[in-house]
Amino acid sequence: MNPIYPLKNIRIVLCGTAHPGNIGAAARAMRTMGITDLVLVNPQQYPDPQVLWLAAGAVDVLAAARVCGSLNEALSGVALAVACSARRRDVAVPMVDVRAAAAQAVVVARQRPVALVFGNETSGLSNDEVGACGLLASIPVAEDFSSLNVAAAVQVFCYELRMACGAALPPEKTQTLATHDEVEAFFAHLERTLIATGFLNPAHPRKLMYRLRRMFARTRLQVEEVNILRGILSSLTTPKNRNKS
Amino acid sequence: MNPIYPLKNIRIVLCGTAHPGNIGAAARAMRTMGITDLVLVNPQQYPDPQVLWLAAGAVDVLAAARVCGSLNEALSGVALAVACSARRRDVAVPMVDVRAAAAQAVVVARQRPVALVFGNETSGLSNDEVGACGLLASIPVAEDFSSLNVAAAVQVFCYELRMACGAALPPEKTQTLATHDEVEAFFAHLERTLIATGFLNPAHPRKLMYRLRRMFARTRLQVEEVNILRGILSSLTTPKNRNKS
Repeated sequence: MNPIYPLKNIRIVLCGTAHPGNIGAAARAMRTMGITDLVLVNPQQYPDPQVLWLAAGAVDVLAAARVCGSLNEALSGVALAVACSARRRDVAVPMVDVRAAAAQAVVVARQRPVALVFGNETSGLSNDEVGACGLLASIPVAEDFSSLNVAAAVQVFCYELRMACGAALPPEKTQTLATHDEVEAFFAHLERTLIATGFLNPAHPRKLMYRLRRMFARTRLQVEEVNILRGILSSLTTPKNRNKS
Repeated sequence: MNPIYPLKNIRIVLCGTAHPGNIGAAARAMRTMGITDLVLVNPQQYPDPQVLWLAAGAVDVLAAARVCGSLNEALSGVALAVACSARRRDVAVPMVDVRAAAAQAVVVARQRPVALVFGNETSGLSNDEVGACGLLASIPVAEDFSSLNVAAAVQVFCYELRMACGAALPPEKTQTLATHDEVEAFFAHLERTLIATGFLNPAHPRKLMYRLRRMFARTRLQVEEVNILRGILSSLTTPKNRNKS
């Protein structure tokens, strides 16, 4: 089963959004993370051309977006509603950070719909709106500047939901890692060469080979790279005609 | 020591940004996460009033921002440069996701400056720009819609940097959790009451108490709540005068 299928059960609810540009930017933020269910509760200026300007092509999200007259209507069918707020509230709802909230939301979303609820740009969510939710989630912000844009908050929450589904980067073009024996043969070749060229005195080796091993250990050498390095070493002790002066 | 002090060693570098609004939005995104060092490499329209419109008060970041003529100049003094790109590149730079990159960046930033480098809105970072960095970091995006806004990407990276510093939400107003004995006394009270009111038949208890215990176990009862619940139970078996009909 597709590991990110719970994202199809996630609904983003924007309450009383004032600036249409934020609706477009939120739709784009959702879409980049594979979340497409958008509900607008009493948007102040909608529809509006600015919505599309900032959606940058997330038109499928906007075409399917629903407008509701109340938060209650927007939460219909939802098994967990998460209030997304920058500040702690004196309400009867447990508060967690966005990462913990995303983990809980994805567990529920494997079974039933989950909503993330965001407030108005200036006043945020009211205590009544938070109280209608089962969880209060917050992004840790700087103490002296907590003014997170609503679409930026949607971006971080949707990113954490995608990460909570175990999302990973597309796989790298395969590079074959060198085996232990290949790497050891390279180190032996390197040591012989350093002795032959006079940089390493076997009577006083100090920690030279140890330091070089430590450096290469961090690189996780590939087969091709070992071949290049050994080619360089060979060239140092068997000078070619073209290097003659 | 302040756990988020590495954030003071983080530099955000925006290359060739086209829209001044994105510079303002990026400054705001940085500031909310406590990151303040902004460097602009050849911005296409700067300064510009739109920068301030979207900065929403992050004026200290903009006042201190520097403009450079090359990425090389912007990376001066930096011990680790992280190229932030939406797509995998055929360059000699290892690629990790944003969370892993943030963990590495914070380790380095405890000692020396670290830069996060973001490209132009339409073309992103060039291969040369990525090649000047020591790490390539990416946000996992939907396969069919990877168009992340640059300020939104800055928000996610700065959020992960703050989380990598162990940032947490401000502590909750302390509520005293009930002890084991207090909770057990409540369950005994509850059971007596359910027997007295006839809902629980001690001869056929089924799994009622087990189910109620399981429900309350999830709530982590507080002292005040145990007192309220036991008050309700007491009121059920000792009717007050005011309840007489």
